[in-house]
Amino acid sequence: MTKQAEGAAERPARGRGRRPADEVRADVFRVVGEVLLKEGIADLTFERVARLSGVSKTTLYKWWPSKGALALDGYFHAVEEALAFEDTGDIRADLTRQLRAFAHIMTGTPAGRVVTELIGQSQTDEDLATAFRSLYSSGRRRLAGERLLRAKEQGQIRDDVDVQILVDQLWGAVYHRMLIPDEPVTDDFVVALVSNLIDGITPPTAAS
Amino acid sequence: MTKQAEGAAERPARGRGRRPADEVRADVFRVVGEVLLKEGIADLTFERVARLSGVSKTTLYKWWPSKGALALDGYFHAVEEALAFEDTGDIRADLTRQLRAFAHIMTGTPAGRVVTELIGQSQTDEDLATAFRSLYSSGRRRLAGERLLRAKEQGQIRDDVDVQILVDQLWGAVYHRMLIPDEPVTDDFVVALVSNLIDGITPPTAAS
Repeated sequence: MTKQAEGAAERPARGRGRRPADEVRADVFRVVGEVLLKEGIADLTFERVARLSGVSKTTLYKWWPSKGALALDGYFHAVEEALAFEDTGDIRADLTRQLRAFAHIMTGTPAGRVVTELIGQSQTDEDLATAFRSLYSSGRRRLAGERLLRAKEQGQIRDDVDVQILVDQLWGAVYHRMLIPDEPVTDDFVVALVSNLIDGITPPTAAS
Repeated sequence: MTKQAEGAAERPARGRGRRPADEVRADVFRVVGEVLLKEGIADLTFERVARLSGVSKTTLYKWWPSKGALALDGYFHAVEEALAFEDTGDIRADLTRQLRAFAHIMTGTPAGRVVTELIGQSQTDEDLATAFRSLYSSGRRRLAGERLLRAKEQGQIRDDVDVQILVDQLWGAVYHRMLIPDEPVTDDFVVALVSNLIDGITPPTAAS
């Protein structure tokens, strides 16, 4: 989007009426999500988000004290629908589909770089690390855990399996290849992540 | 180690005789490993490594052009023995033992923070990212892959399993909890990483 097109898309002044907070937040999330998924974090500034969302910089700073917090909260909401956990009753198909969507966002949009840089910076920035967990990763863990628990209830995952560990062996494995890129994130990789866990890696005859 | 104790442990001057390169490198790796495993990366300086190893700063800079390269090469060699892949013929036991040793280094020594900070910094430092892969992670991947391939030959892992993906689902899962610490790295976690893959996560009756 050019700066001029942005200007044309700018929200009209709304006088002094106060919009509901939820509506204002939704506008901000939409704008932040678009910038992160189409351009990257370098193009995300409070100035620009204020202009594109019609929300004052004062309000933005009140709700999101740092660019990291603004990016993480916006990113969580931007990917919520694309990364939703469907329940067709088939955990293998549902996990594979969701992980494909996740791999696409990480490798096929600028968001992958946004997320790996935020994780990188959070290793030495305690405030950003806290924001990462509270505004993004703990929420994603909760959503994944809910779907995996339903698979347990449906008898597709054993009762004694700690589903939070599966989060590390599925999405965590993708993050590992994003953060230390010795090997690429491919479709075969995503499919195998799920089948290695569902089928186990031992030959049928070797099962105890 | 106090600065005084270090002074006492300092290598005597060796005159102008040239020591074999392997011996010099081994001395440097020993010193770098000790500093990283006992103190952390803030205490690792070329000055100090030169003093403790008896190797000139000129030589150090010639072989390791940056602190990151020096740290990664030293760290690889420092943990090589502790993280060796035993082969008792029982892949479950051998992997669990190795992952316990890895988890101990990551959570019980300053090296965990060293490694997560280097991974973090490598997200925006391409030279460091290259050094991380060439001096540390690709070598660790190779060693893990060799042990997992032997397990395939012994009939303990199915022929169609890509063992490099298991690296992401075992050690990568640990890195995930180190880098985004929503959940802790515990012994139960380490044991479950291995059993989820070896046993599979589906109930026996649900296996197709």
